[in-house]
Amino acid sequence: MTTQEVFQILKRDSISIFSEEGLKEKLESGKRLKIKLGADPSRPDLHLGHSVVLRKLKMLQDLGHEIIFVIGDFTGMIGDPSGKSKTRKPLTFEETRRNGKTYMDQVAKILDPEKTTIVYNSDWLGKMTFADVLQLAGKYTVARIMERDDFAKRFAENQAIGVHEMLYPLMQGYDSVALHADIEVGGSDQTFNLLVGRELQRDYGQAPQEVITFPLLPGLDGVEKMSKSLDNYIGVDEEPGLMFEKAMKVPDTLIEDYFRLTTDMAESEYKSLMAEDIRKAHFAYAREIVRMYHGEQAADEAEKRYNEVAKGGIPQNIATVTLPKEPIGIIALVAAAGLAPSNSEARRLIQGGGIKLDNKQVTDTKLTIEGVDEIVVSKGKNKFVKVIFA
Amino acid sequence: MTTQEVFQILKRDSISIFSEEGLKEKLESGKRLKIKLGADPSRPDLHLGHSVVLRKLKMLQDLGHEIIFVIGDFTGMIGDPSGKSKTRKPLTFEETRRNGKTYMDQVAKILDPEKTTIVYNSDWLGKMTFADVLQLAGKYTVARIMERDDFAKRFAENQAIGVHEMLYPLMQGYDSVALHADIEVGGSDQTFNLLVGRELQRDYGQAPQEVITFPLLPGLDGVEKMSKSLDNYIGVDEEPGLMFEKAMKVPDTLIEDYFRLTTDMAESEYKSLMAEDIRKAHFAYAREIVRMYHGEQAADEAEKRYNEVAKGGIPQNIATVTLPKEPIGIIALVAAAGLAPSNSEARRLIQGGGIKLDNKQVTDTKLTIEGVDEIVVSKGKNKFVKVIFA
Repeated sequence: MTTQEVFQILKRDSISIFSEEGLKEKLESGKRLKIKLGADPSRPDLHLGHSVVLRKLKMLQDLGHEIIFVIGDFTGMIGDPSGKSKTRKPLTFEETRRNGKTYMDQVAKILDPEKTTIVYNSDWLGKMTFADVLQLAGKYTVARIMERDDFAKRFAENQAIGVHEMLYPLMQGYDSVALHADIEVGGSDQTFNLLVGRELQRDYGQAPQEVITFPLLPGLDGVEKMSKSLDNYIGVDEEPGLMFEKAMKVPDTLIEDYFRLTTDMAESEYKSLMAEDIRKAHFAYAREIVRMYHGEQAADEAEKRYNEVAKGGIPQNIATVTLPKEPIGIIALVAAAGLAPSNSEARRLIQGGGIKLDNKQVTDTKLTIEGVDEIVVSKGKNKFVKVIFA
Repeated sequence: MTTQEVFQILKRDSISIFSEEGLKEKLESGKRLKIKLGADPSRPDLHLGHSVVLRKLKMLQDLGHEIIFVIGDFTGMIGDPSGKSKTRKPLTFEETRRNGKTYMDQVAKILDPEKTTIVYNSDWLGKMTFADVLQLAGKYTVARIMERDDFAKRFAENQAIGVHEMLYPLMQGYDSVALHADIEVGGSDQTFNLLVGRELQRDYGQAPQEVITFPLLPGLDGVEKMSKSLDNYIGVDEEPGLMFEKAMKVPDTLIEDYFRLTTDMAESEYKSLMAEDIRKAHFAYAREIVRMYHGEQAADEAEKRYNEVAKGGIPQNIATVTLPKEPIGIIALVAAAGLAPSNSEARRLIQGGGIKLDNKQVTDTKLTIEGVDEIVVSKGKNKFVKVIFA
């Protein structure tokens, strides 16, 4: 793709660009640009929501620009200083580095790792003194920080905002100063923070970065944005069978967005598929996603498996577990097959009707299995384990 | 004075105490207490307004407690990070130390310097990292900081509040943590900041300091609080004659407050003086103030001098300047007598009717003085210089 084509695609798919002229000028300058994307230090599981932005970075990378991921390990290692969040435990230095590596491994599914840089913002923020912090904080007014949507909302609703939280957008913005970023990209929910970076660069005497924000991909529930914690996501690391199945669950109303934002398929192609038969469009989408992340053959297999399961059959090539040829209770069997982390969870699953033996539902927790050479234990619609007694 | 008596005086003269029981308990504990007072690093000129609190510290010092002045040099050396205040220039390290010494010299007029400690808050704030700052800021919410009167007012009026300003009360409060202060005293305008210290100590696992706030002494204008920049002050360093004259200018409506807050005179004594003859009360007050800061003899002389001037006379013991026995223009004479910093200022003074020669007003700027052995040049009501031609 040419610079012009990339610019047109960025313009088409973004929510906003600050500023279009600046972006155009930088792209056409012939300079190798530094393009920044902030990354959460604690959650290395990338999903299709992340891929929206990553795929745009790929285009920019292919034009020869430098992609820089900033892992926000500085705040990650501090945790929640107000001590109110019991869940946000501080990360250790080792954890942030391990997460960074995992992040890079996953990013490599979309970007060329050789041309991608990972940096950790503790490298500069960790060296700042109280005096440096005051200099930074002095560049911004409380009123401007309070304009950030979530702050304004929480303040209006009398919800507590820690004083330290006012510093977070400034820290994120300062990352752009430290990196001399030329462009920063992010989800549209990050617009405020990205613009802080742009303004701080000006305050520190640098050319302000161009900011490009992209739509947030709605999750499979069709309501919330895709996120791991809401379990409405398709991970880029997801195993082909599960990825295909999840992709088939994209709501009809969103399938066009998913095509546009997460695949390279031509608009004319998916639109005609959708017009012809919406179910066919879903199959095409699921195939395309598995193909992108696992290749052609995996896509074929995943589709075949999906069809078998849909028809009530048991798919081929499922995991196997070998147990001693002795009588075993159904609870112990489910646990031994790895379908429940504990006996009590196994009991709950059986009682809830979630477990099948050779594709027949079992709800009697007292059942004993004996005198068979093998049996397929399944959980829900998609988890199958063949148990071999030998 | 006994601990009980001091407690009663603190209770009587303070605006508020947080908490009375806590203060009582600490004072009666027999422990040597650390008593903190924050001090501005840039303005070492103490006046009677400062003396209100310093005199209370003296009582506590006489009970054996440790008085600690915290010079806020950390922010003093940073100046205004927003760069908006052109007047607040950052102080150098040397300036803050010099100011601290001057401060101590003046404080010595009220407190025993041997039992008084001066510390500089850059000693601990200067060592804090960004991570430490976040930990500190995490202890407080934006809403609580915004309760501070001036912030609430400025926010309501859409006046800019720098993000760094939110950190100032926390820094001042952290000083109490660093010092393990038992008690902090201050003017009533500092109540918010002093209470932040109390709360932060709790957050850092210390016993919270007791906070005692005192009324702000109104200045000689009877409107604003006493302050050097408003020129409505009586400095503790002021020369006896001027001190007496300024003290005579305390408004009638305030003389009782001045007696109570700035002298040791018994209430019955000044009340009976005031009832008898308000002018007599003013003289008694002026005498007492000069006596406190300069001794009995200086008070006698200042009173005598005041009376002479009041009667239109020329006081004795005035400064002398010797000039060559040659004709001299009035402008040059005023400047040579040290009553004007420049010829143009001397001309302005003469034209304005502010200059007398031997107690007679002179407004002719062309006047030449010759053929006399000496002449008294005076400016306003109180500045007299005897010029000797020899």
